[in-house]
Amino acid sequence: MSKEIGITVKKNEDFSEWYTQVVIKAQLADYAPVKGLIVLRPYGYSIWEYLRSSVDQKLKATGHENGFLPVLIPESLLSKEATHFAGFTPEVFWVTHSGNTEIGDRLALRPTSETLAYSMYSKWIKSWRDLPIKINFWNSALRAEIKATKPFLRTSEFLWQEGHTVHSTREEAEEEVMTILDIYKRTVEDELAIPVILGKKTDKEKFVGAVYTTTMESIMPDGKALQMGTSHFLGQNFSKPFDVKFLDKQNIETFAWQTSWGISWRLIGALIMVHGDDKGLVLPPRVAPIQVVIVPIYSSQSDRDEILKKANELKETLVKKDLRIHMDSREEFTPGYKFHDWEMKGVPLRIEIGPKDLLKNKMVIVRRDDLKKSDLSFESAEDGIAKTLDEIQKGLFEKAKKMLDNGIKNVNDFAQFKKEIEDGMFLYSSWCGDQKCEETVKESTGADIRVIPFDEKRTNAPCIVCGKPSKVDVMFAKGY
Amino acid sequence: MSKEIGITVKKNEDFSEWYTQVVIKAQLADYAPVKGLIVLRPYGYSIWEYLRSSVDQKLKATGHENGFLPVLIPESLLSKEATHFAGFTPEVFWVTHSGNTEIGDRLALRPTSETLAYSMYSKWIKSWRDLPIKINFWNSALRAEIKATKPFLRTSEFLWQEGHTVHSTREEAEEEVMTILDIYKRTVEDELAIPVILGKKTDKEKFVGAVYTTTMESIMPDGKALQMGTSHFLGQNFSKPFDVKFLDKQNIETFAWQTSWGISWRLIGALIMVHGDDKGLVLPPRVAPIQVVIVPIYSSQSDRDEILKKANELKETLVKKDLRIHMDSREEFTPGYKFHDWEMKGVPLRIEIGPKDLLKNKMVIVRRDDLKKSDLSFESAEDGIAKTLDEIQKGLFEKAKKMLDNGIKNVNDFAQFKKEIEDGMFLYSSWCGDQKCEETVKESTGADIRVIPFDEKRTNAPCIVCGKPSKVDVMFAKGY
Repeated sequence: MSKEIGITVKKNEDFSEWYTQVVIKAQLADYAPVKGLIVLRPYGYSIWEYLRSSVDQKLKATGHENGFLPVLIPESLLSKEATHFAGFTPEVFWVTHSGNTEIGDRLALRPTSETLAYSMYSKWIKSWRDLPIKINFWNSALRAEIKATKPFLRTSEFLWQEGHTVHSTREEAEEEVMTILDIYKRTVEDELAIPVILGKKTDKEKFVGAVYTTTMESIMPDGKALQMGTSHFLGQNFSKPFDVKFLDKQNIETFAWQTSWGISWRLIGALIMVHGDDKGLVLPPRVAPIQVVIVPIYSSQSDRDEILKKANELKETLVKKDLRIHMDSREEFTPGYKFHDWEMKGVPLRIEIGPKDLLKNKMVIVRRDDLKKSDLSFESAEDGIAKTLDEIQKGLFEKAKKMLDNGIKNVNDFAQFKKEIEDGMFLYSSWCGDQKCEETVKESTGADIRVIPFDEKRTNAPCIVCGKPSKVDVMFAKGY
Repeated sequence: MSKEIGITVKKNEDFSEWYTQVVIKAQLADYAPVKGLIVLRPYGYSIWEYLRSSVDQKLKATGHENGFLPVLIPESLLSKEATHFAGFTPEVFWVTHSGNTEIGDRLALRPTSETLAYSMYSKWIKSWRDLPIKINFWNSALRAEIKATKPFLRTSEFLWQEGHTVHSTREEAEEEVMTILDIYKRTVEDELAIPVILGKKTDKEKFVGAVYTTTMESIMPDGKALQMGTSHFLGQNFSKPFDVKFLDKQNIETFAWQTSWGISWRLIGALIMVHGDDKGLVLPPRVAPIQVVIVPIYSSQSDRDEILKKANELKETLVKKDLRIHMDSREEFTPGYKFHDWEMKGVPLRIEIGPKDLLKNKMVIVRRDDLKKSDLSFESAEDGIAKTLDEIQKGLFEKAKKMLDNGIKNVNDFAQFKKEIEDGMFLYSSWCGDQKCEETVKESTGADIRVIPFDEKRTNAPCIVCGKPSKVDVMFAKGY
């Protein structure tokens, strides 16, 4: 494979360029004609389909349903909850004309759908019999990005799901917030093999309009934190302006309790960054569009026929086990070219079958995660392949867990804090709870409080900034 | 059930009002705050999910993949193919601002994505090795509707899929056009139980920019024709302006051959119109979110416990057979209310279990299509239910087929033609092929040539309008 086709920079030398090359060259996505927008190619979209299907199943199993909301929201409706609206105004795309006709009340392309969903819910809910409402929407959100675009991480339109629920009690709504966060955690850890830290956002960092925001954070190889998903308790902040109320069992009119939550294709960005290496993408088997690629190797015609026959039999056997197998029988490329091509695309396992292998009734399997080669007999192929894929899935998680653990440091001294932040660490420090100290950190280091972890280990050290007694221990990092 | 909750008009007395009531009261959809837009409620969206999944499986089985395209297309790109652009300009929503910043090259909300997809394909395709490209996009299209909105039939944003393929030869592209039309036909006839007529559109009615358009048409109970899906042969009409070319095996640069095709949620509109009755929706089992509803009937507490136990056992048995079962154990409604509620929602089969049934170890089953009641023993429940659902699916198709056949008439006389069109018939007449005669029919009757059927039965009658020798026999009707 020529240099131009493969990845030309090393991951730890130019992380940003490496990332972009992997996205483009592994054919996950490409830049659209409008700045800030991307197109997903089938290989990238397929990863999204596996991720979506995993979340969708978990949501349906917990009583959620899907719906559809249009992309256009009238300005008058969007501005009904003032704080919420103010949070999004600089990013909103405005539709002002249809054909040659000017539109009176400008239409926003949805930056998120709380306002639209709740104006509908207000019509649909009459009494406690209509609750809870737990609807999820698989759509896209549009937020004009001013900074440089990064495919999957920062684009002006992104695929996501947004869930919007309504409950008759605060307790039920708060329980929903945690149910969702758990679904997200299981999806990201079990499918994407990325460990996460769960906790709350500070008031400064929470979703605009929420009472509080719970979050799932992880650390990327460049030391920056990535918000992997959020689940918000909205309290009655939206139900009051949008009139989402119900008659309770005592026939008393009551404002409902609400939640909203979302994950986006940003998780594909995390996947690329966490697992990829100098050769390109490394995909966890559970979300890999192709889990196993078979590369037949031959030079003579008689070898060719025999090897293709055997390879096709193997393929059939594995397909029956619900494995996603691709046979690369392209005649116009050498085996060497194919190896590099599929390595760049991150296929978890490669099977090579050559004339010598056939004589010994075995194949060579090559793991993408550690590039280790081993022999596997045709008799043990079914179990051997499935077992190896499981090992790769687990191995990737464990490697990522080590990276996360090694990237976290307890720091009590602000001078050391500033240095460590520059080195790209996730810093665990004590905080007095004052927003001023939070802002001081942001101004002097660029770091935010990413999360107040649920499994906080209180050190009772003084506030990292002002030295006054601390209230909580929090995690600081620079973010994406 | 009070009159207000049920459908208050008869299907054959006020078809339009009946349709709207079914959509709203069966909770399929609701009007969004912006005129011309609708929201899909979970019950309606779920039908879309079954329809989508059926098409998606067929597309994947024939080598198609899914991708994602952004909703924003620059005006400069959209206008590159002039005829195509002119066809859509009056309907385009224009984004002129992001935040407070004016955008130089206005952005269109996609009315369809040929231009965007092909500007990408032009980058991706180098040689014959990269062909064919067969990508499908499940997204929404936006076309500002000036006329009155009808949920699913005429809305300014609608869910659909748009497929865009590229081939190295004309033959392969034309074969693709027919492969897709066949997938559409099988989906609509087998899943939605609606018979269709396949054929070509005239030049006047074809997709703007296509060489020709193949179509799938059906007739609705009000006598109007509905275009159920189209598959277009684009020839090189787009590959030339968008520079979609490839090096062939002789290393010669050649413009590619293209197709595009789509079906939309309009099919849900057809489903409602074709099968519904005065009680509301009637759903074919294959796309019904709930295939069977179980209504337990009891008055005493001891009956209640025993009946619920038996009903739950039955539910478990049927769920294991992959049937979609709902148990309506709501305490706040009477069995009578529940019967009407589920009838309005079109659930194909209802199971009633009361104390007397339990004594006889049987249940009562009630078909939604003909409202016939019969007894079924618990022993034969598994097979009996599955068999009845199959019968309902087939019965609905046969009934719709009769309606279609009865709605078609051969007419050779223009005076009779005008009368029959008023009566809501699908008229099969001869045509000289001159667009002027086509326009005369439109002006004097409001009818279009819906389709030049593939299984044309040439009558060799003179042209219905001008009396000159005819070239083809075509189907005329007023359309949605």
